[in-house]
Amino acid sequence: MNLIDLSCNLQYRVHTPTIFMFNISVINTTYQTIDFEKFMITPETRVTFMDVGEKGNRIMRLQMQPGDFTLAYKARVKLYPQIHNPSEIEEETFEKIPVEVLPYLNPSRYCESDRLARLAMREFGQQTPGHQRVQSICDWTHAQLQYVSGSTDARSSACDVLVQGAGVCRDFAHLAITLCRALCIPARYVSGYAVGLKPQDFHGFFEAYLKGGWYLFDATRMAPRNGLVRIGAGRDASDVSFATIIGEAELLDMQVLATEVTNNIDQDMATEQAVSTV
Amino acid sequence: MNLIDLSCNLQYRVHTPTIFMFNISVINTTYQTIDFEKFMITPETRVTFMDVGEKGNRIMRLQMQPGDFTLAYKARVKLYPQIHNPSEIEEETFEKIPVEVLPYLNPSRYCESDRLARLAMREFGQQTPGHQRVQSICDWTHAQLQYVSGSTDARSSACDVLVQGAGVCRDFAHLAITLCRALCIPARYVSGYAVGLKPQDFHGFFEAYLKGGWYLFDATRMAPRNGLVRIGAGRDASDVSFATIIGEAELLDMQVLATEVTNNIDQDMATEQAVSTV
Amino acid sequence: MNLIDLSCNLQYRVHTPTIFMFNISVINTTYQTIDFEKFMITPETRVTFMDVGEKGNRIMRLQMQPGDFTLAYKARVKLYPQIHNPSEIEEETFEKIPVEVLPYLNPSRYCESDRLARLAMREFGQQTPGHQRVQSICDWTHAQLQYVSGSTDARSSACDVLVQGAGVCRDFAHLAITLCRALCIPARYVSGYAVGLKPQDFHGFFEAYLKGGWYLFDATRMAPRNGLVRIGAGRDASDVSFATIIGEAELLDMQVLATEVTNNIDQDMATEQAVSTV
Amino acid sequence: MNLIDLSCNLQYRVHTPTIFMFNISVINTTYQTIDFEKFMITPETRVTFMDVGEKGNRIMRLQMQPGDFTLAYKARVKLYPQIHNPSEIEEETFEKIPVEVLPYLNPSRYCESDRLARLAMREFGQQTPGHQRVQSICDWTHAQLQYVSGSTDARSSACDVLVQGAGVCRDFAHLAITLCRALCIPARYVSGYAVGLKPQDFHGFFEAYLKGGWYLFDATRMAPRNGLVRIGAGRDASDVSFATIIGEAELLDMQVLATEVTNNIDQDMATEQAVSTV
Repeated sequence: MNLIDLSCNLQYRVHTPTIFMFNISVINTTYQTIDFEKFMITPETRVTFMDVGEKGNRIMRLQMQPGDFTLAYKARVKLYPQIHNPSEIEEETFEKIPVEVLPYLNPSRYCESDRLARLAMREFGQQTPGHQRVQSICDWTHAQLQYVSGSTDARSSACDVLVQGAGVCRDFAHLAITLCRALCIPARYVSGYAVGLKPQDFHGFFEAYLKGGWYLFDATRMAPRNGLVRIGAGRDASDVSFATIIGEAELLDMQVLATEVTNNIDQDMATEQAVSTV
Repeated sequence: MNLIDLSCNLQYRVHTPTIFMFNISVINTTYQTIDFEKFMITPETRVTFMDVGEKGNRIMRLQMQPGDFTLAYKARVKLYPQIHNPSEIEEETFEKIPVEVLPYLNPSRYCESDRLARLAMREFGQQTPGHQRVQSICDWTHAQLQYVSGSTDARSSACDVLVQGAGVCRDFAHLAITLCRALCIPARYVSGYAVGLKPQDFHGFFEAYLKGGWYLFDATRMAPRNGLVRIGAGRDASDVSFATIIGEAELLDMQVLATEVTNNIDQDMATEQAVSTV
Repeated sequence: MNLIDLSCNLQYRVHTPTIFMFNISVINTTYQTIDFEKFMITPETRVTFMDVGEKGNRIMRLQMQPGDFTLAYKARVKLYPQIHNPSEIEEETFEKIPVEVLPYLNPSRYCESDRLARLAMREFGQQTPGHQRVQSICDWTHAQLQYVSGSTDARSSACDVLVQGAGVCRDFAHLAITLCRALCIPARYVSGYAVGLKPQDFHGFFEAYLKGGWYLFDATRMAPRNGLVRIGAGRDASDVSFATIIGEAELLDMQVLATEVTNNIDQDMATEQAVSTV
Repeated sequence: MNLIDLSCNLQYRVHTPTIFMFNISVINTTYQTIDFEKFMITPETRVTFMDVGEKGNRIMRLQMQPGDFTLAYKARVKLYPQIHNPSEIEEETFEKIPVEVLPYLNPSRYCESDRLARLAMREFGQQTPGHQRVQSICDWTHAQLQYVSGSTDARSSACDVLVQGAGVCRDFAHLAITLCRALCIPARYVSGYAVGLKPQDFHGFFEAYLKGGWYLFDATRMAPRNGLVRIGAGRDASDVSFATIIGEAELLDMQVLATEVTNNIDQDMATEQAVSTV
């Protein structure tokens, strides 16, 4: 069990009456449980909490008048990473993929798996199906992309990023997801907090559906897998943006922090071993 | 009530052991009920039926060995179109959009609503919100696009189609959906059968979420709205392809037919009046 | 005759031995003549001057060692704008377009005229050919695009910009050029100085080939046509970038200024009347 | 010296008065000379011949009335391929690239070299500059792309083709040209006839500018380099389409044939040795 402290502080300047939807609070699963959590909005404001989508993403909806406000979130989380031997995890045969998992085979806004079918078959078609093939996709993604802050924007898709040869965490995840889907491996985008990530920020990684459930992957190799705390999951980053803003407001400051209270998280987990979730 | 007879005949030549997932059977809703339906596969084959996604799309999964096979589907459906006065249907305020509807605001593979935000505001930002604004989007889409068979393919997105100025039914739907989402109106793609469509084929249209529920729209104006029978709904065409094929097979022949038994469907409904579903 | 003073001051920090090619000096044509000009590079450096391309673009090539340097350019130019009545200028019939002009009908990096053929025909196909049709293209471009600094980058093409609904001067020119070519009107990109442009900067506009020669257009309406001083012309902005850098260097400061010594330039010329060049 | 017989037969059905520009006749260079050539148009029609662009592409312009017509072209050509040792051919240093060659460093419609800069540096940045580096680009292109007839169309650019992993000869050339330019090696597209190409058709290949001049490359490996006869050269395929049609006409039949009269052309030349032109 890894005990992790999380915090997120957001400061906004609001110019017109604006609706905010935040997706920054972590979820409860069999794999991660929330010990406690606390939201503080200054000035005080009524907040509506909602669960969206099949994965239980938690959304806070609030309406703000012009002026500045801050949102502080604190939580302590227990992670129970299930470590497996990668070589023993097979891909699920197509006819046994549960129906609720099937949509994660479809292309999405940032993951045009239909366009990368040939490339995926050429690079990975001959490899033994299983966890190690997905790891192979991560390694290839890591080799194709340089991590360059600011090299992409909200319009950049997996194909754009592949051509450009650079991106940030969400782009690494999108490209790897796209290749998985092109090989008929369901894959979904996960946003979260990440112990050990430098500099600290929200992180984007992904899960692939293999025999036995969903397994965590992170093609950036920037944080250990057993220190990844999930906020939300979706088809790609468009389903889990940390803030949706209807109105006019600017982000003045953002501080994100994930630190381990226990001392179990090992940086080597960035590339080694299989971690299953849910 | 409109009584409609549907049939679909597909003939395939299978080259390798192949898994098929068909999404050709209609669904039961409060708005459309299935009187009877019948599937015939020759040679006889074991079929698994599944419901996928929050909208109850019905998938048939079957595995075929090399050789030819035919799939025949027949159904009789009762449609209960709810006709409303378009000028009385308002858009739902953002804070009241149900959580399960929110994902239909996100961009998707073929509907890059993030990219068309400015254009949508320029063209429709000043119009009175409501059913008539969505109708306006349909009219604009109809004016921008020529219906040209073969002008697009499985890679064509709303932005591609807008640039090209031509498309087929799925492209008309994608462009209109994209503009709705860019204006914060939830919209989803619907595949179905269409009485009066010439030539007869599967049809693609869409629904927008307005106050009171989902409303049918068809930017192609090729079929009356009260003769549209739903097969499936999803974020865009990628969620409701009529056949997904894992293996090697070719479609030898396809016949689709929707005919009215009653005599209530009026071609004028292609552009007039509001029809709600579910 | 309009007498215009130009200056351009560039300051760079060079990190590795770097080759620079500058395209900032104006050209001599029958329409614009250089009274005097002066280049000052500090520290003093050997410069090679070259003329590139059929339009006589003037390139300065220099090699710099690590360190800072400044390039100052000053010139006084006489412009002889030929003002015509727009309604009297016809398009050239295709068979009479000179062979050296034909390449300006082809699509180029930022002007994918092949992709906008249908849209161009739909919007402008029924209009009377001539100067006024090109003006119409400019007006349409102006209506479609918002001028937003930073909304585009070096990858943005005419189609991207059309989808996005925003751009800067080079994007306005690219979109209008693309539409001209799609209608079989030769068009080329022109970079230059612009009296009256606010804020002062290099400007991008375009010329269309009509009966009698090349005519100036500027879809941004940000500067009068009879105060546009040409630096270079090419198929699109990729042919006339003001600086090409082989090595590592950063631009520390850039000051561009075009002021009229005479008092003949009228802001109304931004949208009115036809001006021919060469 | 290789003696080659060429023929091209085109048959069109013309629906409206239509202007045709054909670019099917080969050019005279120091490397290839025309022994004789003959054009036959049935019914007989007045033809204008023009040379376009700096490379002397030869255009035939003709105007046809509705009805059918055929164009037959026959030529006998002497090729004098200059065979060099690839390991002795260096890249030209940037400051010595002739000004008329510089435009072939710029991105173009189908060769977005600006977008592939990082990928080119990652894959080829560490290799020894010279003919062998360009050969390396061809080998890589050959490994990335499957040759699949019909997999691309007139809109497909180098980046599209790279993502798709398939293309035809023009796409192979575009991708290799793009990578050359991204590495600051001038490269241009060449259309021509090709002895040994199966099936016979017009062919697209490319030339890179290295120390001493332009060198032939063909990333498809489908025809020997010393049997390539040039029709035209340009920035990419958009500059040398074999037929430009202003009006409405359909191609009913096309037969292209290049056969060697001598017996000097060796299929091994598809991948070995350097051939310079001009």
